[in-house]
Amino acid sequence: QETAARIIADYDFLAIPVIDRKGTLLGIITVDDIIDVLQEEVTEDIHKMVGSSEVYEDKLIKASPLTRAKARLPWLFVCMAGGILSGSVIKLHSDTLQIVMAMAFFIPIIMAMGGNVGAQSSTIAVRGLATGQLRIDELWYNIWTETKVGSLIGIIVGIIIALVALIWQDNYVLGLVIGLSLCLTIITAATIGTLLPLIFTKIKIDPAIAAGPFITTIVDVGSLLIYFSLGTFLFKRFSG
Amino acid sequence: QETAARIIADYDFLAIPVIDRKGTLLGIITVDDIIDVLQEEVTEDIHKMVGSSEVYEDKLIKASPLTRAKARLPWLFVCMAGGILSGSVIKLHSDTLQIVMAMAFFIPIIMAMGGNVGAQSSTIAVRGLATGQLRIDELWYNIWTETKVGSLIGIIVGIIIALVALIWQDNYVLGLVIGLSLCLTIITAATIGTLLPLIFTKIKIDPAIAAGPFITTIVDVGSLLIYFSLGTFLFKRFSG
Repeated sequence: QETAARIIADYDFLAIPVIDRKGTLLGIITVDDIIDVLQEEVTEDIHKMVGSSEVYEDKLIKASPLTRAKARLPWLFVCMAGGILSGSVIKLHSDTLQIVMAMAFFIPIIMAMGGNVGAQSSTIAVRGLATGQLRIDELWYNIWTETKVGSLIGIIVGIIIALVALIWQDNYVLGLVIGLSLCLTIITAATIGTLLPLIFTKIKIDPAIAAGPFITTIVDVGSLLIYFSLGTFLFKRFSG
Repeated sequence: QETAARIIADYDFLAIPVIDRKGTLLGIITVDDIIDVLQEEVTEDIHKMVGSSEVYEDKLIKASPLTRAKARLPWLFVCMAGGILSGSVIKLHSDTLQIVMAMAFFIPIIMAMGGNVGAQSSTIAVRGLATGQLRIDELWYNIWTETKVGSLIGIIVGIIIALVALIWQDNYVLGLVIGLSLCLTIITAATIGTLLPLIFTKIKIDPAIAAGPFITTIVDVGSLLIYFSLGTFLFKRFSG
């Protein structure tokens, strides 16, 4: 069904005849069937991205709360495991946190920015792959471009947040720590957000389903690792 | 263009003639034009959700790093403002955090779960509105159903995380605080995730563009408020 839709959409055919091996006409697939399929398929794609892959939208919207909860829980468990891992990173550095309580105030910014940049990059990559605009053989070139985009965003945002930290908390080292880690986090998030969908496509796993929870988890854990490692290192160096 | 696409898709027409006021035929819009429009439109919808509304995907993938960074920055600034607000909530409760350092270990879980449930709910609502399956006059019914879905997920996830906190940190009050706040956070996220796209549609703002950054910010700030208020209240009560 999806293959027929692709053929009609790509070649601007108005209909495709369906024949069996003997050449007998079984039926005709027309463009208006295709419009329905394409709409359904794209809707399905979007749902895969938020982890409700098993059920179609119309089933989901009219389904019982129990069915809807069941469709959404598996993705949330992956997310929960990632959260526990992220929490462990913070626990590992609780000595530093005990001394510099203000480091906790910037956990939300680090997590929110990393998650958003990762989601932006992976959405662009997943859709680019789906529409055929992004080719697997351009892999390294694409990742390199996305790393450059991430660096630009990271530098701008890093400088702003460093100034915010300086004014808000009046702490030079904290400004340096948060600015530098946010910059590194955004570069990492943009690169991983592009890399994972390409890897998943290469090993023949649908990137729309698989990439989301993995990117969130890797970016969350990675960004907190960067932030707290850098914080522990710099505060020991400048305060001790 | 989008209106013509909707008419053809909804009524299964094969073509629509375009005439001027005098009745002269200007041209014919055929179904294969429509397929292209629908594909482009849906791609655009997805980009709106991650905040790159101004540029089309093909422009975005082939654009310079500077253009790509500029398209993504406005959304990230909204996200940054939300992060600073969330940080202020943590700062407000830094007395409690100083005493119960372990509360910091669960900030990532609270944020990640709230964000994901909110994104799931709003994606279902935005797509349901776009395809016409969700009607504005069913507003209260839809929100009520989504609140039930959120409650189910919240209770299951809340019990699990309370047990994790108990085993990991050996602290009954912390288990109660995190379990209860995660449950409340998920219910809030599911409700707001459904409510905002419906409100935006009603006041004639495209929910795909506007809902995302607002939901993330409201859910982040809201969930940390619930978590730290409940924590401060319960730890004072049971430890003092």
